[in-house]
Formats: sequence, structure tokens, C-alpha cells
Amino acid sequence: MLYIIGLGLGDEKDITVKGLEAIKICNKVYIEAYTSLLSFGISSNGLSTLEEMYGKPLIVADREMVEERSDVIFSEACESNVAFLVVGDPFGATTHTDLVVRAKKEGIEVKVIHNASVMNAVGVCGLQLYRYGETVSIPFFTDTWRPDSFYEKIQKNRSLQLHTLCLLDIRVKEPSLESLARGRKIYEAPKYMTIPTAIEQLLEIEQIRGESAYNEDTACVGLARLGSEDQMVVAGSMRDLLDIDFGAPLHCLVIVGKTHPLEQEMLEFYSLKKGVPEK
Amino acid sequence: MLYIIGLGLGDEKDITVKGLEAIKICNKVYIEAYTSLLSFGISSNGLSTLEEMYGKPLIVADREMVEERSDVIFSEACESNVAFLVVGDPFGATTHTDLVVRAKKEGIEVKVIHNASVMNAVGVCGLQLYRYGETVSIPFFTDTWRPDSFYEKIQKNRSLQLHTLCLLDIRVKEPSLESLARGRKIYEAPKYMTIPTAIEQLLEIEQIRGESAYNEDTACVGLARLGSEDQMVVAGSMRDLLDIDFGAPLHCLVIVGKTHPLEQEMLEFYSLKKGVPEK
Repeated sequence: MLYIIGLGLGDEKDITVKGLEAIKICNKVYIEAYTSLLSFGISSNGLSTLEEMYGKPLIVADREMVEERSDVIFSEACESNVAFLVVGDPFGATTHTDLVVRAKKEGIEVKVIHNASVMNAVGVCGLQLYRYGETVSIPFFTDTWRPDSFYEKIQKNRSLQLHTLCLLDIRVKEPSLESLARGRKIYEAPKYMTIPTAIEQLLEIEQIRGESAYNEDTACVGLARLGSEDQMVVAGSMRDLLDIDFGAPLHCLVIVGKTHPLEQEMLEFYSLKKGVPEK
Repeated sequence: MLYIIGLGLGDEKDITVKGLEAIKICNKVYIEAYTSLLSFGISSNGLSTLEEMYGKPLIVADREMVEERSDVIFSEACESNVAFLVVGDPFGATTHTDLVVRAKKEGIEVKVIHNASVMNAVGVCGLQLYRYGETVSIPFFTDTWRPDSFYEKIQKNRSLQLHTLCLLDIRVKEPSLESLARGRKIYEAPKYMTIPTAIEQLLEIEQIRGESAYNEDTACVGLARLGSEDQMVVAGSMRDLLDIDFGAPLHCLVIVGKTHPLEQEMLEFYSLKKGVPEK
């Protein structure tokens, strides 16, 4: 049996009781390392907090391992119980859907244990989840690569008066271009997009396209470390949020559509106009 | 402190370790009764499974209590720790946002403990969450009340090639019209919309509006008891799903937009064409 277990968003205690019980009957426990393990108290020496809680050693699986060497995981899961731990919910990332598809094709029994993910925990800011349109991703711009497919999606959501959740780029264990050119992979330091960087890129594209999808006065909500003890939520215009230090990753951004009175009331708790941003 | 704690979707073991620890330090534990407690092993005698696990008595809070008598909960939360348990995630329903807003206005410290909800667990069918448009609700039609605001929303989602999550009506503790007329509330038996009923209503509205937002051949995914041990997921056309007995509630329905190859591969595991519906 292959258990795909969501860890939730905050810390080691956000796993469900069901997830924890599943880990205890597993012979091998993998943990994905290609989104973010930042909030799980992982030191450079290992995975102490999680391993201590589970009473088991963890095998860190990076994207390469999951995409290229899954046959090892699958053959183990044929003979015994194997856990694959995922930050947030198992179906938050395409990579995990791919893992499930391949496991099922091999005839392996797969059991999913759900948890919170950014896709539903973003509800904490008060904007109702059923009033969101398509989710967009904001990738890091480089000198030569400035993809702007998010622009039209935001434009469509806004024309329908819907909110837009913007997921901000994460670059973990990416081989540097230079090292690829030399034929030997050397990995860049992890890189996480901040809310101000995302807004800069959004405004740059608006300036180029000029179709008034949004502007500096557009209402937004910035959310950092969602679900953690020190999460930070600030509501304000794009201009306002540009100057705010949201601290450590992960960050995400919501572009606000038309709000109902209850949504507006909730946003006001997080509004810059109230003085110090609420935690 | 007021803890708003998500219970997740399946059974009593879907609570997080953090949520369980919070309950243990609370003097009073309320549980919402106005969405669904079906999957939590609650007998007519009480809340045995949950109470046993928590080692505490639970106070069932229906919508009336939460909306009208929250001052009692708030005054308790001023002086001690109070837990308010919610099926799924705390921000899945407007009512809970309203509770948080009112608590914050009273100056009460609120702490939210997230969990899985239908909004992200629906990812299990393989359709990527970022490719969903606005979520719609399908209300029970009556002889005189057949609201169809979902139609235009589905139409817009489909024109953008996005998937649509349809949440199906739940009627718990609704006073009967007859009893209201007599000035004394008598509650109707709980009523949960099935997937076939939702599809019948959808097709009825398509026939009236005739704008080809969808038809009997439109690809859908029906999901019953999402996150439970006996969850059922079936992919097929509206016509196909009309004849399927999905069993006990809760049900929800996804109207499929344009699929990517990975989404298509995943859907095929749940496809009717493969014979017996997979569990």
C-alpha cells in the first residue's frame, strides 16, 4: 500500500491523527522536498522535529527522485506499507497527481490522507472560497524570460468580479544554467518569491499590456506563512503592499474581486488602515 | 481564546494533532450541526465516537444557536479556552466567517486550526485545483422556487475551459413552511441532494435557457463521501451519472472543463467505461 499523506501547512502537529497512524505502520517514509519544508523545523542536519514525532527515519525525495526513480518506491509499496509525505494536501501539486497515476498503473493500491492546503486555508482572510476564479502562478522573471500568461487570467477573473489567488514561484534544487551548460548539475540556492516582487512583476506586465486589468490601487491581500503560528495577513492596495516586509517564506497574494459586506468586514481586520498589520 | 478547529472530511481521526491538543485544553467544546455530522459516527443518542476520542462532552450548536446566541460562547471564550468544531475547514462556510468577525469585534482572541475541506479534497479526482472557476451551489428546487443563478456561472467557467465544482444542497434543521405559518417551529427531516437530482435540475435549466452551457454528454465527475473510507468517485457524462446510485451523502459534482493529458489519465481510473465504478 502506498499512503500519500498531507502534512498541512504549519508545523509537525498539523498532520492528522489518521496520517500519523498510517506512518506508524509504514516500513519506509518518504518526504517530498521540492515544494517547501521550511515550516517543519528542519535543520541542515536532518529532519529532527518530524523524525522525532514519527519515531522513524525520513527519506527526503526531491523532484528528480520522484519523477525518475519512482520504481523503487513502487516496488517497496508492492511488498509493504510505504508513506509519501506531502506538504499541504496531496493534490496541491501536479507532481503528486503524476505519482498517483503511475502507481495506479502499476497496480499499486494508493490511499490518500487529506489535509489543509493553501487552496483552502487562504479562506482565513475572509474572502469566500467559492468566489475565486482560476488560480494563477507568478514565475520569477529573468532577463530573457518574462512569461505573462497570468495577465489574461487575472483580467478574466476581474471581469467576473472574482478573487484571484496568485501562487508565487518557488525554486528549490534547480540546476543552475551555467552548470547545465558544463554538463554537471550544480544546484542554485533555494529561492522563494516575496509578495513585493510578485506585485512589481504584476505592475510591470500591466504597464506593457496596458489593458487595465488592475493597477496600483487594486485591493489585495498578502499572506505569509499561512497556517503557521506567525502567519501574517495584510490587506491593502498593491502600492501599499509593495513596501511591506512579510518576512520568511512562503508568501501568496490574493487580488480582491467584488466583495460582499461580510468579506469586507473581515478584510478590515487585516487592513493597513488600522495601523500595525495584524498577525 | 476561541479555537475554531477544522475536523476534516472523513471520520474522527481526520482531526489534526494540533486540533486535538487544543480541544484538550478547552473548558467547553461546541460542534456545529448545520452542515453535516454524518460521517462522524454520531448516533441518535449522542456524539459517542467524537466524545470518546476527545474525552470531553460536546455541545451541539445548530445554526440558530451560532447566529443568535453567540454571546454565550463569546463570554465563555473571554474567560477560558473554548473550542468550536467545524466539519471540513473553518472557512468552508460563510457562517463561520461571520462567527470569527463577530468574535474579533468583541475583542476575543481567535485561533484557527485548518483542515481539509471539499474545496481542496476534490483534487482527488485528478482535475487540478488551479483549473477550477467559480464554485456554484445547486439548491433544491421546489414547486415555486427554482433559482438558476448557477447556470451563468457554469456557462462562464466553461467558456474559459475551466472545471466547475457544484456544491449540492443540504437541509438540516430547516423549519417546515407549514410550521412557520402556525407560529411554532417544527423541523423537517434532514435532506441531502444526490448527484442524480443535481444533474436533473441542471438539465432542466439547460432545457429552459437553451444556451448550450452543457448537455447530457458533458463530462462530469460525481464524488460521494469525499475523504471517507468508502468514498466513491465516478467519471462519466451527465447521462451516465444519472443512473448511478452513489449511496449515502454527502455528494458533490464536478463539471469537467478542458483537460490536460495528466488530468485525463487520472479521470480514466474513475471512468465508467472501465466497468465497475472504482471506490
